[in-house]
Amino acid sequence: MNGSLMVVGLGPGDTALVTPEVSAALAAATDVVGYLSYLARVPPREGLTVHASDNRAELQRARQALTLAAEGRRVVVVSSGDPGVFAMASAVFEALEDAPELQTLDIRVLPGITAMLAAAARVGAPLGHDFCAINLSDNLKPWALVERRLQLAAEADFAMAFYNPRSAARPHQFARALNILHAACGPDRLITFAHAVTTADEHIETVTLAEARPEMANMRTVVLVGNSATRRVGRHVYTPRRAD
Amino acid sequence: MNGSLMVVGLGPGDTALVTPEVSAALAAATDVVGYLSYLARVPPREGLTVHASDNRAELQRARQALTLAAEGRRVVVVSSGDPGVFAMASAVFEALEDAPELQTLDIRVLPGITAMLAAAARVGAPLGHDFCAINLSDNLKPWALVERRLQLAAEADFAMAFYNPRSAARPHQFARALNILHAACGPDRLITFAHAVTTADEHIETVTLAEARPEMANMRTVVLVGNSATRRVGRHVYTPRRAD
Repeated sequence: MNGSLMVVGLGPGDTALVTPEVSAALAAATDVVGYLSYLARVPPREGLTVHASDNRAELQRARQALTLAAEGRRVVVVSSGDPGVFAMASAVFEALEDAPELQTLDIRVLPGITAMLAAAARVGAPLGHDFCAINLSDNLKPWALVERRLQLAAEADFAMAFYNPRSAARPHQFARALNILHAACGPDRLITFAHAVTTADEHIETVTLAEARPEMANMRTVVLVGNSATRRVGRHVYTPRRAD
Repeated sequence: MNGSLMVVGLGPGDTALVTPEVSAALAAATDVVGYLSYLARVPPREGLTVHASDNRAELQRARQALTLAAEGRRVVVVSSGDPGVFAMASAVFEALEDAPELQTLDIRVLPGITAMLAAAARVGAPLGHDFCAINLSDNLKPWALVERRLQLAAEADFAMAFYNPRSAARPHQFARALNILHAACGPDRLITFAHAVTTADEHIETVTLAEARPEMANMRTVVLVGNSATRRVGRHVYTPRRAD
């Protein structure tokens, strides 16, 4: 099998955040596979076949990519952000588990700038101490597990980043998450809502948990919660390196 | 004040992982400030003044950078990885807290590929579900807090990434961390030691906690621990998106 499969991260949106490694992979690809709105960020080119799919069809998309690579194509699967953070890389390996005959394929993951780090950079350094990243969607895990992780993360005094905080299909869960955080971290804890970071639609605001409203988040928002020491300095928000 | 200060991430080592945004900032800088071994990764150029410092002098380096920017220079502070993850961004904001007269300066953080995500990409997708990042150094926090966070992270079933796992000055603490993880997560949990990822010295191995030895880590290693579902598929290690 001479084909290859690269799972690449396009970063949060700005082309200046796409690594040269990823640009080179896209330039060498015969086929690119991904969610429609991410494919719009790949420069079209003679000889490059584009395979678009719906955002929810991750596993199907991963299988298609493996099949194309097994046929000898140089396939690139595109993710937003980093492919290893709540994105396509795990889906590709899940699909690979079901296809033992393809496990010798040349499969590589190329990292990208993930949304929480782009958002953190925009406001300062809110993740400058120990932190955790939690996907708040309950599509693939029970909501009770999300609540349990929020409690333990607060107990550990981690700064936190939340992906997929709120969707139209489950508007009440994020309100519940904010209540848990308010109870565990107090009203003054800083929370940043970073919407569509580094794109033309970017909107970022930092408030306290007392001021936070569920409507400040949607599926294009990454949410950052500080630890007990996170504070403002000038226009910036940061978490000190030191802890007691 | 017409000067500016950009705190930029050079990624883990490979120049193909430096974002175009960071390359452009370096090309426009008048002064670059950083730890000697990171400065070696900045292309020298006529008109670019290089200010090297020792790795431990973060706060002093941050103050120097602020002073230069206040003098009207276009200053770039370089970090390895991402500046907001256990790197220079928080140190700059700490220094800014002590200099209220400089808080209107143009200060920006430009994200980079942080070591844990480069390491994760190399082995597959071990951070493909909820995870946490912990700095194991006790330079700036009590070791008891590190142990507490390890316990809570295991209880939350987070995948984990550890920065600065082990130094010559404190060789026994990482052994203690491995013991805590072994007790909390069991002998079969997968752990990846990624040394000098994406550089010529790169060495990566994945073993079980039963096989893990403290000597597998040093200060150039990032350590990744899977969650309870993390497993191998072919040559890869990944964490499924789904959890029960």
